[in-house]
Amino acid sequence: MVNNNSDFKIVDASALPSFIPVGPANLKEKIYAQVAPDLSRIEEEINRLLDSDIPLISVVGRYITGSGGKRLRPLLMVLAAKLCGYKGEEDVRLAVVFEFVHAATLLHDDVVDHAEFRRSRPAANTLWGNPAVVLVGDFLYSRSIQLAVGYEDVRILQVLLDATTRMSEGEVLQLINSDNLEISESEYLEVITRKTAVLISAACVTGAIFGGGGKGEENALKTYGQSLGIAFQLIDDTLDFTGEAEELGKPVGNDLQEGKATLPLIYALRNAKAAERLRLRQIFTAESIPSEKLREITEIVARSGGIEYTINQAYAHSMRAKEALGIFPESPVKEILLDMADYVTCRRA
Amino acid sequence: MVNNNSDFKIVDASALPSFIPVGPANLKEKIYAQVAPDLSRIEEEINRLLDSDIPLISVVGRYITGSGGKRLRPLLMVLAAKLCGYKGEEDVRLAVVFEFVHAATLLHDDVVDHAEFRRSRPAANTLWGNPAVVLVGDFLYSRSIQLAVGYEDVRILQVLLDATTRMSEGEVLQLINSDNLEISESEYLEVITRKTAVLISAACVTGAIFGGGGKGEENALKTYGQSLGIAFQLIDDTLDFTGEAEELGKPVGNDLQEGKATLPLIYALRNAKAAERLRLRQIFTAESIPSEKLREITEIVARSGGIEYTINQAYAHSMRAKEALGIFPESPVKEILLDMADYVTCRRA
Repeated sequence: MVNNNSDFKIVDASALPSFIPVGPANLKEKIYAQVAPDLSRIEEEINRLLDSDIPLISVVGRYITGSGGKRLRPLLMVLAAKLCGYKGEEDVRLAVVFEFVHAATLLHDDVVDHAEFRRSRPAANTLWGNPAVVLVGDFLYSRSIQLAVGYEDVRILQVLLDATTRMSEGEVLQLINSDNLEISESEYLEVITRKTAVLISAACVTGAIFGGGGKGEENALKTYGQSLGIAFQLIDDTLDFTGEAEELGKPVGNDLQEGKATLPLIYALRNAKAAERLRLRQIFTAESIPSEKLREITEIVARSGGIEYTINQAYAHSMRAKEALGIFPESPVKEILLDMADYVTCRRA
Repeated sequence: MVNNNSDFKIVDASALPSFIPVGPANLKEKIYAQVAPDLSRIEEEINRLLDSDIPLISVVGRYITGSGGKRLRPLLMVLAAKLCGYKGEEDVRLAVVFEFVHAATLLHDDVVDHAEFRRSRPAANTLWGNPAVVLVGDFLYSRSIQLAVGYEDVRILQVLLDATTRMSEGEVLQLINSDNLEISESEYLEVITRKTAVLISAACVTGAIFGGGGKGEENALKTYGQSLGIAFQLIDDTLDFTGEAEELGKPVGNDLQEGKATLPLIYALRNAKAAERLRLRQIFTAESIPSEKLREITEIVARSGGIEYTINQAYAHSMRAKEALGIFPESPVKEILLDMADYVTCRRA
C-alpha cells in the first residue's frame, strides 16, 4: 500500500538531525557542467539502442530510461575509463549496458513491489500491465548483455555477470526479508550491497578494464564504486523518512509501506525507548500504514538517532570511496569522481 | 481462464485426421535407453548448481526444473558436441545453461500467462507468488549466462545472447499478438521460431562450437535445431486441440483460453466454411470459453483440415532437420539425433 498524498511531508524540520549535510554550494551544478558532453553521448546512445521493430519495446524502454534517472552507472563507467587513460568514444555503448541492466531491474522491481509511482510518474506496470513490463525487462537485460558480449572481452563479461547474479540474489534476499523486523544491520548491508552497490562497482571496474588500468586501478575503482553505492543507498533510505515527495517522485514512507526495514528503522528498533520500540513494531507490522502513523514512526526513528546514524554511515562510506582514489594522480576526472562521492551524501532527491 | 476439467477430451477420435503419426514402436524408449548416461550427468549437474545459500532459490529452481521436462535443450547440446567429435565430460555445465535459460522463461511465462498449471502440477506462481517467481527467474537467467561466461569463449556467448535476445523479443511479439485473429501464418512462424526454435538451435550450435566442429558442422546443426524446434512447437500446438489433459499436464484448449491463435486455428480461419469462420471468431474473442464451445472450436478446426495441415508442416520441418545432418557420417549419435527428429512429430505429450 502506498501513500498517495504527494504533498505530505513526514517530519517537521525540528525533528530532523540538525547537521543534515548541505555540501559545497552548487555541487550538483558543478558536476553536471563537467560531465555534460559525456551525458549527452550517453543519452544519444540510449536513444539509438532503444529503436526496435517492436514498438512496445521502444515505448516501455524509453519510458523507464527516460524518467529522469541520474545516469549514475554509465557515467561512472565512462569516468573510470578516462581516469585509467582512455581517450576515445567507443566506451559509450558499454556504458549504456549498465543503464539497461539498471532499467530492467527497475521494471521488475515495479512488478515485485506493486509500485504505483516512480520518479513522479505512474510506474510502468500501471500503464502497460505486469506481462509487458516483465517481458520488456527481460529484453533489456538480455540485450544489454548482448551489447557487452560485442566487446569480446571475457573479463568484462565476468565482472558484469558476477554483478547481475549477485544482484538478483540480493533481490530475492530482500523479498525474503520483507516485513522482517529481526534483520540485523549486517544483513541489511548485505542486501543493499547486492541490490545497489554491486552494479555501481561493476560499472567502475569495467571502466578500469576498458580504459586499460592495471589490477591496482581496478581494485581502487571497485572499492570506490562499492562504497559510493552503499552511501548512495543509505541516503536513499534516509530520504524515505526525511525527503519531500515532490522531489523524490514517490511518496515519502514508501519503503515502510512496502515492508522494507531500512537502517534508520533497524537502528531505532534497537535504540529507541522500550515503549517506542514496541510502538514501531505494532505500526510496521500492520497491513497498511496511515499517514499519521507514518509520521509517528518517522518521529520515533528521528528521536532515536536512526537517521543521524545512517547519514553518518553514509559519510563513512563516502570517505572510503574518496580514499580509494588516492592511488590516482590529481586530474579533472578524479575531481569529478571525488565530487560525486561528496554529492551522494548531501543530495535531497 | 483455464478449463480445469482434466478428464475433458476435446475431439472424438472420429474427428481426428486419420493419419495421426504413430512412429516406430517404442521410439521414445529407444532414445532414452541410449541417452540415459548423458541424462543422468545432466540431472546431477542441475541438482548441484541449484544448491544456494538462499533456500527460496533452491526450492523454486528445483520445482521448475524438476517438473518432468524432457531436458531436450541440454541433451541436444551434449549430442551435438559428440557428433562433432567431443569425448570429454566438461560439456555438461554448458549444457545445463540451456536448461536454466529455458526454466527462467517458463517461470516468467507462468507470470505473464497467469498460468494455474504446468506439467500436471500447480504453476510456480500459484505456490510462491509473482514476486518470487519473477526474481528467481531473473536469478536463473543471470546465473546461466554467468556459467556460460566461465567457458571463456566469446563465440559461444554470442550465440547464446543472440538467442536469448531474439527469444525475449519473441515473447513480447507473442504478447502483442494475444487475441489477434488477424495474425498471418508467417507472423505465427516468426513467433514460434523465436519463442522455441531459437534456443534449441543455439544449444545445437553451441555443441558444435564446443565440440570443435567447423563452420559447415555449425550451420548443419543450426538448421537441424531450428527445424526440430519448429516441428516440436507445431506438434505442441496441435496437442492443445487433440491431446489428453492428463498426458499434457495442463488443460486441453489452454492456448485458446489464453488468447493464443496457433496454426491449426489460423488455418481454419482461412479455410473453414464461411459460417464456421464467423463462429470461430465469435467464440475465440469471448472473455472465456466454456467446455462445450472449446469442443465446438476444435471440431471446426479439425474439419477444416487445420490439424492435418499443422502436422504436415511439422513433418516437413522434421524432414528438413534430418536432411541437415546429411553432412555427417553415420554414427550412433547421428542416429539418436535422427530418431529425436522423428520423435518430436509423433509424440503425444
